[in-house]
Amino acid sequence: MTAGLDFEGWSCPLPLRDTPAVVMGHGGGGAMSGDLIEHLFLPGYGSAAPAGSGRSDCAVVTVGGTRIALSTDSFVVKPMFFPGGSIGDLAVNGTVNDLAMAGATPLYLSAAFILQEGTAMTELGRVAEAMGAAARAAGVQLVTGDTKVVDNGSGDGVYITTTGVGAVPEGADIHPGRAAAGDAVLISGDIGVHGVAVLSCREGLEFGTTVASDTAALHGLVAAMLATGADLHVLRDPTRGGVAASLNEIARAGHVGVDLVERDLPVPAEVRDACSLLGLDPLQVANEGKLIAFVPAESADDVLAAMRAHPLGAGSRRIGACVAEHPGMVVARTALGGTRVVPLPIGEQLPRIC
Amino acid sequence: MTAGLDFEGWSCPLPLRDTPAVVMGHGGGGAMSGDLIEHLFLPGYGSAAPAGSGRSDCAVVTVGGTRIALSTDSFVVKPMFFPGGSIGDLAVNGTVNDLAMAGATPLYLSAAFILQEGTAMTELGRVAEAMGAAARAAGVQLVTGDTKVVDNGSGDGVYITTTGVGAVPEGADIHPGRAAAGDAVLISGDIGVHGVAVLSCREGLEFGTTVASDTAALHGLVAAMLATGADLHVLRDPTRGGVAASLNEIARAGHVGVDLVERDLPVPAEVRDACSLLGLDPLQVANEGKLIAFVPAESADDVLAAMRAHPLGAGSRRIGACVAEHPGMVVARTALGGTRVVPLPIGEQLPRIC
Repeated sequence: MTAGLDFEGWSCPLPLRDTPAVVMGHGGGGAMSGDLIEHLFLPGYGSAAPAGSGRSDCAVVTVGGTRIALSTDSFVVKPMFFPGGSIGDLAVNGTVNDLAMAGATPLYLSAAFILQEGTAMTELGRVAEAMGAAARAAGVQLVTGDTKVVDNGSGDGVYITTTGVGAVPEGADIHPGRAAAGDAVLISGDIGVHGVAVLSCREGLEFGTTVASDTAALHGLVAAMLATGADLHVLRDPTRGGVAASLNEIARAGHVGVDLVERDLPVPAEVRDACSLLGLDPLQVANEGKLIAFVPAESADDVLAAMRAHPLGAGSRRIGACVAEHPGMVVARTALGGTRVVPLPIGEQLPRIC
Repeated sequence: MTAGLDFEGWSCPLPLRDTPAVVMGHGGGGAMSGDLIEHLFLPGYGSAAPAGSGRSDCAVVTVGGTRIALSTDSFVVKPMFFPGGSIGDLAVNGTVNDLAMAGATPLYLSAAFILQEGTAMTELGRVAEAMGAAARAAGVQLVTGDTKVVDNGSGDGVYITTTGVGAVPEGADIHPGRAAAGDAVLISGDIGVHGVAVLSCREGLEFGTTVASDTAALHGLVAAMLATGADLHVLRDPTRGGVAASLNEIARAGHVGVDLVERDLPVPAEVRDACSLLGLDPLQVANEGKLIAFVPAESADDVLAAMRAHPLGAGSRRIGACVAEHPGMVVARTALGGTRVVPLPIGEQLPRIC
């Protein structure tokens, strides 16, 4: 453990010293979130955190000889209801997708609520109904839960933490460490849609778009991709931190470079306009119903065809390739023929997006 | 579903109409929490909630032929650090205990954090270290997690949601529905200790006690009880709502009555004094390292002996019996020879106790 300043018996490691208190960026899914995991949570947990943990959205563990996938996420999106969905949809689909990205079949969810005193019962009822509908659509069961209430001023409406359990098929081995030079990089459709949908209804930020969130459960799409028989190397849903964060994490985990072609990125006009207006990079804007896949080049056409044949993958396309050069780094070829580095977002350009 | 008033497309069922907004009592683990589950969450989830779900702290589900136990809890205790422990200890031990009360062997935990912007990094570090130490002590691994940050004013320090996965031994069938007339009712030691420990350091409520929280992982004690070969009918850790809430829930689930003997209840002097001062009923004060067991009368002595031989059960004793009379109701024989009904707590006498 890094030597550090001693505060009340806890030694603050060097990389966190610039931020003696938690800031919004620590929840952004970018570099600051990574620092917190690497320099605070994992050292704190010590040997209770198995080697290699904390770097993936989903753990694969063994119970009585059976491999199961386990994933958890808290949802604090503001507002709770937005075009195309609600915190209830995200809470189900987000955790289902984390399981699906490990190739697991989602089966069961738990749901724990932290409610702010004063939240309207009607709003909570609508959230519960949204969760029920999303769970039925995804074919998963909500089997257990918990409810806590915090005083007005110590919460904000409804916070939901869902944890999912899935079955891991024999031989499934899909994780960021398998990214390999030569892989084609695919995406299942338009990017930046969820983030812009939530922003469009934030106070003071209405900019007249009618973009609806793309929240959806993606395990059916993954099943269609697996059915091609292709050896899928990596799957990732680019949520917080967007495509930029996901690709950088994969590049680092796989010790490979990623070359993107900017003009191949499917950015819808509404997202492009909103991002221009607000000074955002669409590559860093959150998605909730899209996936990135790294697949061997020779399987790319088959997998793309299977994705396009699925309702949630109709807009699938190849956006780049995995290369041996510049390992750990994502580089985009720009429309003008130059290149630019696509950095891992540091903090968070859009807080509380999920 | 009960017909109800229509608010914005969601129909508020009758039992919730008196509370059009969430109040602290909905998080108290008593009757109001039960109303929320029964009349809001379960109808909202619809068929995505399997029959019988939502009434137990732990679900037992099957993945690939293997039975696993799944349990989740959010922790919002205030303050985060208190005599004898911290929110980190509770987050590990509380979920471990929910698994243990189903007779499961706790194996893996996920941990999701909702952090308030501005929380000192040193406090978060101490919480992570407490979780690591508690997990090592309990023999469980922290395998995955998530971190979200909410703005100052929308949170309160650190909220943690842990979800646990455990292995369910062949033949294990321990649940409240198995309570049977004739069962002896046992408790593993002093009651009300955790609640008084947290209260003792709340602003304005210092009353000079030195009670330390009893937070502990109880699966070792359960293993010792199971090793007697006794057919344990029900196990329950009486947390929020205390012994009163747990016994009432068991009486309702098992359609049995519970007769308590007040003078046999192990209430330490410090708890009795603090409760007198504050007008609290020790039976409703939270515990974190105690369990209640319903066991066949003929096994009670063996089980009690095994409990007393375990460090966490040294103060175990019989506190009453399960009867066929007054089903669904808990009745206490008072010191004066009379009887009184011990009601299911309605809301919460001590908010944010776990």
